[in-house]
Amino acid sequence: MPGTLAPPADARPTRIEVLAYGPEAIREARVETPEQARAQVGQHPVVWIRVVGLGDVELLRRVGRAFGIHDLALEDVVHVHQRPKLEEFDHHDFIVVRVPAAAGSPETRQVSLFLGDGFLLSFEEEEVAAFRPVRERIERDRGRLRARGADYLAYALLDAAIDAFFPVLEQQGERVEELEDWLTAAPTGERVGEIHEVRRELLGLRRVLWPAREMVGSLTRGQSPRISDETALHLRDCYDHTVQLLDVLETYREVATGLLDLYLSAVSYRLNEIMKVLTIIATIFIPLGFIAGVYGMNFDPSVSPFNMPELRWRFGYPFALGLMLAVAGAFVIWFRRLGWLGAGPKPAASGRAGSEAPERSGPDRTAGLGDG
Amino acid sequence: MPGTLAPPADARPTRIEVLAYGPEAIREARVETPEQARAQVGQHPVVWIRVVGLGDVELLRRVGRAFGIHDLALEDVVHVHQRPKLEEFDHHDFIVVRVPAAAGSPETRQVSLFLGDGFLLSFEEEEVAAFRPVRERIERDRGRLRARGADYLAYALLDAAIDAFFPVLEQQGERVEELEDWLTAAPTGERVGEIHEVRRELLGLRRVLWPAREMVGSLTRGQSPRISDETALHLRDCYDHTVQLLDVLETYREVATGLLDLYLSAVSYRLNEIMKVLTIIATIFIPLGFIAGVYGMNFDPSVSPFNMPELRWRFGYPFALGLMLAVAGAFVIWFRRLGWLGAGPKPAASGRAGSEAPERSGPDRTAGLGDG
Amino acid sequence: MPGTLAPPADARPTRIEVLAYGPEAIREARVETPEQARAQVGQHPVVWIRVVGLGDVELLRRVGRAFGIHDLALEDVVHVHQRPKLEEFDHHDFIVVRVPAAAGSPETRQVSLFLGDGFLLSFEEEEVAAFRPVRERIERDRGRLRARGADYLAYALLDAAIDAFFPVLEQQGERVEELEDWLTAAPTGERVGEIHEVRRELLGLRRVLWPAREMVGSLTRGQSPRISDETALHLRDCYDHTVQLLDVLETYREVATGLLDLYLSAVSYRLNEIMKVLTIIATIFIPLGFIAGVYGMNFDPSVSPFNMPELRWRFGYPFALGLMLAVAGAFVIWFRRLGWLGAGPKPAASGRAGSEAPERSGPDRTAGLGDG
Amino acid sequence: MPGTLAPPADARPTRIEVLAYGPEAIREARVETPEQARAQVGQHPVVWIRVVGLGDVELLRRVGRAFGIHDLALEDVVHVHQRPKLEEFDHHDFIVVRVPAAAGSPETRQVSLFLGDGFLLSFEEEEVAAFRPVRERIERDRGRLRARGADYLAYALLDAAIDAFFPVLEQQGERVEELEDWLTAAPTGERVGEIHEVRRELLGLRRVLWPAREMVGSLTRGQSPRISDETALHLRDCYDHTVQLLDVLETYREVATGLLDLYLSAVSYRLNEIMKVLTIIATIFIPLGFIAGVYGMNFDPSVSPFNMPELRWRFGYPFALGLMLAVAGAFVIWFRRLGWLGAGPKPAASGRAGSEAPERSGPDRTAGLGDG
Amino acid sequence: MPGTLAPPADARPTRIEVLAYGPEAIREARVETPEQARAQVGQHPVVWIRVVGLGDVELLRRVGRAFGIHDLALEDVVHVHQRPKLEEFDHHDFIVVRVPAAAGSPETRQVSLFLGDGFLLSFEEEEVAAFRPVRERIERDRGRLRARGADYLAYALLDAAIDAFFPVLEQQGERVEELEDWLTAAPTGERVGEIHEVRRELLGLRRVLWPAREMVGSLTRGQSPRISDETALHLRDCYDHTVQLLDVLETYREVATGLLDLYLSAVSYRLNEIMKVLTIIATIFIPLGFIAGVYGMNFDPSVSPFNMPELRWRFGYPFALGLMLAVAGAFVIWFRRLGWLGAGPKPAASGRAGSEAPERSGPDRTAGLGDG
Repeated sequence: MPGTLAPPADARPTRIEVLAYGPEAIREARVETPEQARAQVGQHPVVWIRVVGLGDVELLRRVGRAFGIHDLALEDVVHVHQRPKLEEFDHHDFIVVRVPAAAGSPETRQVSLFLGDGFLLSFEEEEVAAFRPVRERIERDRGRLRARGADYLAYALLDAAIDAFFPVLEQQGERVEELEDWLTAAPTGERVGEIHEVRRELLGLRRVLWPAREMVGSLTRGQSPRISDETALHLRDCYDHTVQLLDVLETYREVATGLLDLYLSAVSYRLNEIMKVLTIIATIFIPLGFIAGVYGMNFDPSVSPFNMPELRWRFGYPFALGLMLAVAGAFVIWFRRLGWLGAGPKPAASGRAGSEAPERSGPDRTAGLGDG
Repeated sequence: MPGTLAPPADARPTRIEVLAYGPEAIREARVETPEQARAQVGQHPVVWIRVVGLGDVELLRRVGRAFGIHDLALEDVVHVHQRPKLEEFDHHDFIVVRVPAAAGSPETRQVSLFLGDGFLLSFEEEEVAAFRPVRERIERDRGRLRARGADYLAYALLDAAIDAFFPVLEQQGERVEELEDWLTAAPTGERVGEIHEVRRELLGLRRVLWPAREMVGSLTRGQSPRISDETALHLRDCYDHTVQLLDVLETYREVATGLLDLYLSAVSYRLNEIMKVLTIIATIFIPLGFIAGVYGMNFDPSVSPFNMPELRWRFGYPFALGLMLAVAGAFVIWFRRLGWLGAGPKPAASGRAGSEAPERSGPDRTAGLGDG
Repeated sequence: MPGTLAPPADARPTRIEVLAYGPEAIREARVETPEQARAQVGQHPVVWIRVVGLGDVELLRRVGRAFGIHDLALEDVVHVHQRPKLEEFDHHDFIVVRVPAAAGSPETRQVSLFLGDGFLLSFEEEEVAAFRPVRERIERDRGRLRARGADYLAYALLDAAIDAFFPVLEQQGERVEELEDWLTAAPTGERVGEIHEVRRELLGLRRVLWPAREMVGSLTRGQSPRISDETALHLRDCYDHTVQLLDVLETYREVATGLLDLYLSAVSYRLNEIMKVLTIIATIFIPLGFIAGVYGMNFDPSVSPFNMPELRWRFGYPFALGLMLAVAGAFVIWFRRLGWLGAGPKPAASGRAGSEAPERSGPDRTAGLGDG
Repeated sequence: MPGTLAPPADARPTRIEVLAYGPEAIREARVETPEQARAQVGQHPVVWIRVVGLGDVELLRRVGRAFGIHDLALEDVVHVHQRPKLEEFDHHDFIVVRVPAAAGSPETRQVSLFLGDGFLLSFEEEEVAAFRPVRERIERDRGRLRARGADYLAYALLDAAIDAFFPVLEQQGERVEELEDWLTAAPTGERVGEIHEVRRELLGLRRVLWPAREMVGSLTRGQSPRISDETALHLRDCYDHTVQLLDVLETYREVATGLLDLYLSAVSYRLNEIMKVLTIIATIFIPLGFIAGVYGMNFDPSVSPFNMPELRWRFGYPFALGLMLAVAGAFVIWFRRLGWLGAGPKPAASGRAGSEAPERSGPDRTAGLGDG
Repeated sequence: MPGTLAPPADARPTRIEVLAYGPEAIREARVETPEQARAQVGQHPVVWIRVVGLGDVELLRRVGRAFGIHDLALEDVVHVHQRPKLEEFDHHDFIVVRVPAAAGSPETRQVSLFLGDGFLLSFEEEEVAAFRPVRERIERDRGRLRARGADYLAYALLDAAIDAFFPVLEQQGERVEELEDWLTAAPTGERVGEIHEVRRELLGLRRVLWPAREMVGSLTRGQSPRISDETALHLRDCYDHTVQLLDVLETYREVATGLLDLYLSAVSYRLNEIMKVLTIIATIFIPLGFIAGVYGMNFDPSVSPFNMPELRWRFGYPFALGLMLAVAGAFVIWFRRLGWLGAGPKPAASGRAGSEAPERSGPDRTAGLGDG
């Protein structure tokens, strides 16, 4: 039903922190009621009200009432599977963004930002580690961040959230590269499940980053009157980062798809090698075994001169061995002409892979993953 | 021929219910003729005329005439394979939407809505279970839903219809996940038909959800004068849900496609393992059998000293056995160098799969399926 | 060269029929010259000049001159491989559409329509069966069709042409379903050529239906002043049909593509089963054969006690048989642990396929093919 | 460096021909200097200056100066790997188009056209055979072509160039069809390289035809003031041809891609058949061979009654043969139940392929390749 | 953090060169401070300030201050993984472009250009070899380049950067062609890793060239007031080159993807050939071996007339050999009818490949890679 708030089962208890600051002063406090937080808005140039944990639905509802948040927006705050998006309301902009759950992790947590006049209200599923440097910059360097408005704070948080995806992609890139190395060297085990897993995780990241790009783009195009020109310039930079992330992501996805082809062809190639060994051995020895079998027959040479006279020849046994040798030799020559006996099957393959290795440029090189 | 009404063969008998309400009062009744229903429009703020079952063509035609519905629209109501769409007529908006036939089922039923001034006329193939909560909300909480117009009722029904697809996708997601588990563990049977089936059903759902997204989007963009701003805001939320459904759907489709690759490579890998076993056994024992065959030949050693003198050696038999042992050992060493005898073929594979299992995040985790 | 008219080699002789009608009267005649047909335009509200067969180039040229048709348009009429399209000329609209050559056939024939003021001039390669019901409606029910203008007649013909593709797609759907059943049951023969053929025919239909959709869409958007609002409403319905056809078509194409994957994996799976049988038999019996071979060697036990003393043991033969039994048993146990001896290979597969069968919903069910 | 002219290594010597004409008169001449050609412009309604061969850079530069051609355009004339394009300059339009190097050849040559007021300046790598009919039409029929301006001449040349691709595609279609026939009949050799080659050539043609379509489309949309309405109408026809060519091309590309799948599945199927034969023979005879081996063991029956008493049974030999027969029979029954012994493997396949053949419609039929 | 400058670890020391020129004069100097460079702007028509090496962050910051460069732009200069882009600032345009790290290398280096009024400020990771000819043209030919403004210089550098990708693509094309030749001839080793590598490098190039095309396109469309019409004309030419590069690139990518299919089918085909050899040999000799085994059994013919009477037949041995010959002959006939014994498996394949070779047109032919 629209308007009902059902927080996730494992939601953390809710707490509210207020960080009010201007070029001169800064005041931090944990408040008990949202009304206390609301009262500070207007007394300082920027008031950042930070709600961490979504466990206390009643408190969240009060926050909503205090800041005039629409029921539907509050619903989106609590239902933490939203895609990144920007929605404009009369008195504030509503921004949803996602951050990695932990450093390098492909799982994400939802962050909801309400940017109003003179305040920024943020909701976090759990305290977002990527926001700590932003907070420290507010606390320490009074210069830049503090001189600017709430829109710049919103930008700083967005930027921190987006940039936190660079190490995530780096890790995925390393996995892709590691799989690639394994495939070109000697794919002995079955690691195709890992390729599948990487593809899945990249797919999940793509689902987060595409709408994030769109959302930052909307902010950049100055749709909101609360975004100053200077902040828009910075958002353009942030937008570039989302583009870069998606660029790298799509590259990894294509490479990961190529890995499956590589794997399948490696498996097929090895099957060929296995079958060649079987075929060579069987083809040589089965006819030899047949010859031995012939001379193991028990026809009685004493009955007639037609019954296996070879058995009583002086050079019968050498003749038989020679016959076998000739047959085996003929097959060896034939196999050599077919190219099946060039060298040992395995050394050839690994030797080639080895000679390629130094030339190959790793994915992070080609993909050009940078954070700036 | 345009204008002919051919209901589906298994159409249910038609009945008409009227639910007239306003903030104060509510009146429910089953009526026999559409004219009775029509008469109530205007007497209450909102009148919901609910036509359930499409079996009685004559009655449907009378409903059409009573509410001024175009022949072509009525045709679409009866031909229940319409894609979701929005069509505007002079006196009403015509909305087609589809709902799952049963909870979690990928099959869908058609619902047609006519939103006019002060009334909502709905046609259902059979009574839609997802509409029951909406009705109950009208009956019980007099506050919100009753205070609003027919456009909000249309939204509430649309929202209920769309949200009914979340459990459908959840079930598909579980099937995908279950197949994934099976594939990474030990794919013994042939379940590729199930993968095909999942892909088909996801394809069918996609055919329903894409036009639904488009239709809700058109409503959101305020194309219709009958949609108030507040309702448009709610429709935007409903639109978000369609986007989220499609997002999850496309993820499942990509994963399901990946499953086939996974399956094929698993099958290829197993073939390799099977062939390795055959090759090892055959390659070792065929030459040994040949040696045994040689000493089973019946050349007469008494005829000449060249004829199998080994047979009368003192250590002839141990020599032969030793020769066999040496040959077998040489092959074993060779296979070990080829990496074919690392460990048992099967345990290696399952061990690897097992070690991956805990790291793998299930599809519902990555896909982030939520109903809010 | 532009302007030259080269009819297809198997073109039928040309004949001209005129059907002039209004709400009151109707007159049908076969005329010899196009000028006679032209003379009737204006005397009746609607005049349908029907040119059937493209064999008589001279006559066609005269038709062109009589109705003021541009040389390039006439060229398109005769070169019967045009894609459906709409072209506007000063005095008429030129519409090309294609109809199935026979009921359910994926081959198509070209129909060219010239919609002018008070007349509709149609060119058909051969008499189009799908137009017969339109003609009968004109002849019999004087009400609707006769009361309307030439634009409605054009719509009625277009609608008949488009709707004639529903049975074509239904047949393709049945073939897809039939192939699907065969694949999930027991794919013994090689029917991959049929899958290829279905894909080809669907591809061909797509080439006809995409531009048809575009063409009907252009007509709907009121590009032409000759289309009344009421007819545009009907064309919107016709447009819906093209959308639905393409929707179903694309579904079938995706399913048909999936069939190939299904086929390949079925083939791979069966190869695995075949190789398993070979491997099990060969792996058990080749070592046994080797043991038998060893005791078939002719080392002379009388020469030394080392030469095959087993041959003279009291329980030598039972020992040898027991040894063989032990080896065979060890392999069987090993194979069982590898999961290769779960059950018979084939019954398992067919049993699974059988249990799936009832759950599977056929393509026409999922695809939702309807003609309304 | 921009502005440098480097003609291809195998460029032909340059010659300049002038064809000046109007409704009344026509004058043809080969001129030595471009200034002579330039002087004729204005004296006749249309002057076609035809530069054939790009070997004489100095002469080309003089042509450029005489007609006021920009250095960059001249550069494009000489560097003959341009994609078809339209560029507008102040005093002329610059059109690049490509024509097949020979009738039916997928290789192409560049033609550059400069359409100015009263003249058309064309540059050809070598004399284009497809332009001969245009020239002949100018020379002979004084009516149509001569009465029109330089824009119509440009259209006539473009149309000739585009239409020359129809036979090219027809040939590719025949190759596709021929490969298809081979694949459905009995794919014995390895012709996958040919499939690859066809795909490559179609890819190359696509690279030429896509920009050609775009270029003709730009001309059609009346971007240039030098194109009259009547000529624009003809260009629309020419545009239709490019659309049709691309349509057919994309169909062939999809079919050619499908051929590879067909080939791979045919190869897999044949592998199955081969392995079935091997498995049947080996599975039957290896156990039989083992039985024979057992009774070939040399245990001494005289030592104990347990040592191979069968050897001295009265019906020992028939018993052994019967045992073998029973084992073989059991396997045959089993294989029959597995469906491996339905019929001969090969005849079944070819029989099926044969029954399909008559139904199959060739690519030129489905693809609907026509030149009109 | 936004605004921090972290140069790459292996950044070169920074040096600043100034090249000030006009139609008359030219002055080159290496300066120590950016302020010196700044002072020259305005004194000459064009001043090119060239900053090579990004190692000295402090100096770069001073350059930024001297030329009024925004912190975010400076950040992009230093973080050398930017995609090509155009950003407009109040006092200059900011252009990022990439050049190949070495001639023909698929790795790239970043070049950042700031185009202001009367000056061009360029930042290079290391001195770009492709810029040398531009510099030489400035120094030597006083005519064209010197008479134009800073916008033309920016164009000249962009053009040099873009054109440096032609040899890169040529090399990739040669690799593709070489792999193609290897695949159609006799694919003995495992070079699928190389195919993967080529695809990767093409993917990387695509990531550079797509945004480059977009960037040049933006410049062409006259978004910047600093670009004169004449320069825009030249940029249009440069844009054509990017289009051509991408065209060739996409062709190579499609061909490289086709190579994998080719490889897989070649591997499958060879497996078939290998299995055919094994099957033929095993199928012929295993039954023969069985017959020999039967007559090697030790049933005592003296016990009863049923026990292997053949052993004492006069023509027993010839009978047995004849039986074997008959069986072998039957199999040979059967294999011949199956088409498995057409010719030697290998020669057939190589013969076919050989006959194709002369017809095949290499990729550089089809792809039409030119630098003009």
